[in-house]
Amino acid sequence: MRIDIITVVPDILKSPFEASILKRAIEKGLVEVHLHNLRDYVTDNYKQIDDYQFGGGAGMVMMVEPIDKCISHLKSQRDYDEVIYMTPDGETLNQSIANQLSLKGNIILLCGHYKGVDQRVRDHFITKEISVGDYVLSGGELGAAIVCDAVIRLIPGVLGNETSALTDSFQDDLLAPPIYTRPAEYKGWRVPEVLTSGNFGKIEAWREEQAYQRTQEKRPDLLKD
Amino acid sequence: MRIDIITVVPDILKSPFEASILKRAIEKGLVEVHLHNLRDYVTDNYKQIDDYQFGGGAGMVMMVEPIDKCISHLKSQRDYDEVIYMTPDGETLNQSIANQLSLKGNIILLCGHYKGVDQRVRDHFITKEISVGDYVLSGGELGAAIVCDAVIRLIPGVLGNETSALTDSFQDDLLAPPIYTRPAEYKGWRVPEVLTSGNFGKIEAWREEQAYQRTQEKRPDLLKD
Repeated sequence: MRIDIITVVPDILKSPFEASILKRAIEKGLVEVHLHNLRDYVTDNYKQIDDYQFGGGAGMVMMVEPIDKCISHLKSQRDYDEVIYMTPDGETLNQSIANQLSLKGNIILLCGHYKGVDQRVRDHFITKEISVGDYVLSGGELGAAIVCDAVIRLIPGVLGNETSALTDSFQDDLLAPPIYTRPAEYKGWRVPEVLTSGNFGKIEAWREEQAYQRTQEKRPDLLKD
Repeated sequence: MRIDIITVVPDILKSPFEASILKRAIEKGLVEVHLHNLRDYVTDNYKQIDDYQFGGGAGMVMMVEPIDKCISHLKSQRDYDEVIYMTPDGETLNQSIANQLSLKGNIILLCGHYKGVDQRVRDHFITKEISVGDYVLSGGELGAAIVCDAVIRLIPGVLGNETSALTDSFQDDLLAPPIYTRPAEYKGWRVPEVLTSGNFGKIEAWREEQAYQRTQEKRPDLLKD
């Protein structure tokens, strides 16, 4: 899989790809992540990538031309399955979208910044719009990092133990059950006895019941579908 | 405002605070962000911070003791309004939670990693659990960065133009209307005429109608409340 991220502040995105699971996935050659600085696609001397809104109002708007140039350049080199715009009014990312994206070959993630991109970019270049949640961020960069993290960890071989991702919250529409590790007692707080019983049938039953109970309590909406 | 982030991979979180709006907010002294490496709070020689799950199963669990030590150390130095655990089964972050958090004085963000923290941490140290969305990430680090970004940009003085955050999506339960900038025509694609009309009453009416229409089309759920 190859992910191209287009941004005006590539600096924000450096460290998330230089540590932990994402770093190892890149080193293993399981995914390529390329950052593109939009300013490299501006032809004028001022390196202008944004301008005031037509009709007035606070906040700058990212111009069509540099984005067109960058996307067209990338498309001239390979085919892309999706050109995704990160925006708070896009489709809300969930585990099912992450699963689908993890099966793609090449995708572009365009990060909005300032007030966002000129609407004509969305109308003519974007195939999918994704939001990571109902809140506003300074830009789409952290959202793009979230998409990369959620998607890349699902690529086979990325997680050390492949069963690990399958037991995460949301993969079966249930939240994960409580987990415990040593010591069995800390400051008088003990782990539930069943977990140290050695009876795996009982443990499985307890975990399923806890997962269901926790979902019922915290996220009843997940059980409705 | 002061934010303390507790993590086992502080490296992931470096660049988001060293660029753009978050960097400037820190430089202006409007917010302090401190990263704490959980390994600095381990007493044994192996620097062990995680262990296998009681009851078996894939994935490691973060141990109680180092987290207890780190949180207790921070609490001995100042009072905290919230000790927040970043977890996919927490309360889903939205603009209203971001608004509330932006009014706090000191908060701790604890990032889960691997399969998450020992349940006893959640039972005894955590005052609030936040999820950035219904998807699983490698760890809570990017979620913590999202919380910081969403919250810090709301602190007065952080954004250049204070009206800018108020016209964002979600602040009034409506998505933002389409935005355009120069040139007025690009490859035959023109901006809507009303925006270049100079009639501000008409422009306002058009924007409101567009915001409503876009919300109706993409996120009818926002209009229900």
